[in-house]
Amino acid sequence: MVEPVTKLVVVGVGLIGGSFALALREAAAVKTVIGVGRGQSNLEQALASRVIDEASADFATALRGAELVLLAMPVGQTGSVLRQMSAQLDPQTIVTDAGSTKQDVVRCARAELGSRFSRFVPGHPIAGAETSGALAARADLFRGKTVVLTPEPQTEADALARVAACWRAAGAVVAQMDAREHDRTLAAVSHLPHLLAYALVGEIEDRDNADSLFHFAGSGFRDVTRISESSPEMWRDILLANREAVLAELDAYQARLAGLRSLLEAKDGARLEQALSRAREARRARFPARSDPQ
Amino acid sequence: MVEPVTKLVVVGVGLIGGSFALALREAAAVKTVIGVGRGQSNLEQALASRVIDEASADFATALRGAELVLLAMPVGQTGSVLRQMSAQLDPQTIVTDAGSTKQDVVRCARAELGSRFSRFVPGHPIAGAETSGALAARADLFRGKTVVLTPEPQTEADALARVAACWRAAGAVVAQMDAREHDRTLAAVSHLPHLLAYALVGEIEDRDNADSLFHFAGSGFRDVTRISESSPEMWRDILLANREAVLAELDAYQARLAGLRSLLEAKDGARLEQALSRAREARRARFPARSDPQ
Repeated sequence: MVEPVTKLVVVGVGLIGGSFALALREAAAVKTVIGVGRGQSNLEQALASRVIDEASADFATALRGAELVLLAMPVGQTGSVLRQMSAQLDPQTIVTDAGSTKQDVVRCARAELGSRFSRFVPGHPIAGAETSGALAARADLFRGKTVVLTPEPQTEADALARVAACWRAAGAVVAQMDAREHDRTLAAVSHLPHLLAYALVGEIEDRDNADSLFHFAGSGFRDVTRISESSPEMWRDILLANREAVLAELDAYQARLAGLRSLLEAKDGARLEQALSRAREARRARFPARSDPQ
Repeated sequence: MVEPVTKLVVVGVGLIGGSFALALREAAAVKTVIGVGRGQSNLEQALASRVIDEASADFATALRGAELVLLAMPVGQTGSVLRQMSAQLDPQTIVTDAGSTKQDVVRCARAELGSRFSRFVPGHPIAGAETSGALAARADLFRGKTVVLTPEPQTEADALARVAACWRAAGAVVAQMDAREHDRTLAAVSHLPHLLAYALVGEIEDRDNADSLFHFAGSGFRDVTRISESSPEMWRDILLANREAVLAELDAYQARLAGLRSLLEAKDGARLEQALSRAREARRARFPARSDPQ
């Protein structure tokens, strides 16, 4: 059992921030939750549905005596939010984040937090949904999911341990890796796939016969494109923040498509089938059916 | 209530053929089902699980007195199967198929069936799963799904009506369109997406750090790649059969990706967000959440 967080401040009470608060509450791992955010109506909904105990418009009040702060707004706002927070932070307060990119967040935190950077624990819960806002929050969102923490050499051990314990209390499995490796990994298995899904829907939507095309789209198309309903603002920020790694992945993927195109152009059925079989066997082996939510 | 099919022959008792038999049976719309196929163990499983009443190794026996024949093997076998069947067909027997491409199937049928081509009804149920084989068959697979029939000018009206009635009995909604339009439509919303999913898994699997990459892949990656578990043989055939339309779609998609790449390269956050938003709004409007199986 984890010692309850006395005062948790969630900046950005959306799907991720709200779910973290709910999960800690359910685990009796938090006493008071303060929500900070730009959207007044979203904060009111968060209050009404008891995702947070109090909403606050200003950091000075919200941060006073806070034990833990979770940043859960789009990553593009990390710099400006940390700038506003920096002078108000108590020396012992631990700050962590839930951003999908880590090198840029670490850069911002290092620049804005000064000597308090040692109390900053960069993190990324690999969990989400195409829904957003406080009303989408669920206490079980992180159950069984991986949370990656990417501490820097300066990160204090007690801060890292505390954040890890909170995520475990929320039901997650905590992994640790280097921020650069994190960003490259996620570019391949998350950022690129999102871009591919957005591109596919955009391409079909722009056709003259889009109505008919969507009408005949089956469950496969729906699966492939589900994540294109994710927040455009959040994903714009992620793509920009992890730009170089995403560009590299995009190039690799386009080259892969070009290779498959050549096989198809040449009617090379044998090698085409080989490529499809290799992918199928990999997908099956990597994600056994029982772990695949259907 | 549809008049029951006296004798149905299913060539290829897999997910689609088996589900058609089960659906008609559940609707009391078939009397006897004969299964024909290459895989002896699959046919035995189909018999044991009562997907079919009899298994037959030769067409002469199977086709005698058949009212309806459904071809449900990979489309690449259509020509050779029709060649074997042609001389054995009773004049009144209706032949239909479930192939994912239609122009090549029509071409084969026209070449192999001669004067009996008028009893051939080209069809494509837009339903499926990444599973395959007789054991994957489900009576409800086609419920609420669209089945496209692509009759030619020679197709006899009674044959078309009978096949449509059977699909409706199986729970499907029947649509009619031109074979060429069908193939172009499906290239965009089904064949390309499958290729994209296979390509993505293949690309990750070939990396030195594939283990780590797959470990950190979340639910978005799983959704995008689910259809890469579809049958490689079937999809090789579909891609080859609909080669030109798929190549055109692939080129359009590559151009779309190149456009997004330029925005990202130029750090054009505003236009990038616009592109993502447009896709999100389209996905939301085209597939309202209630119809999205989660």
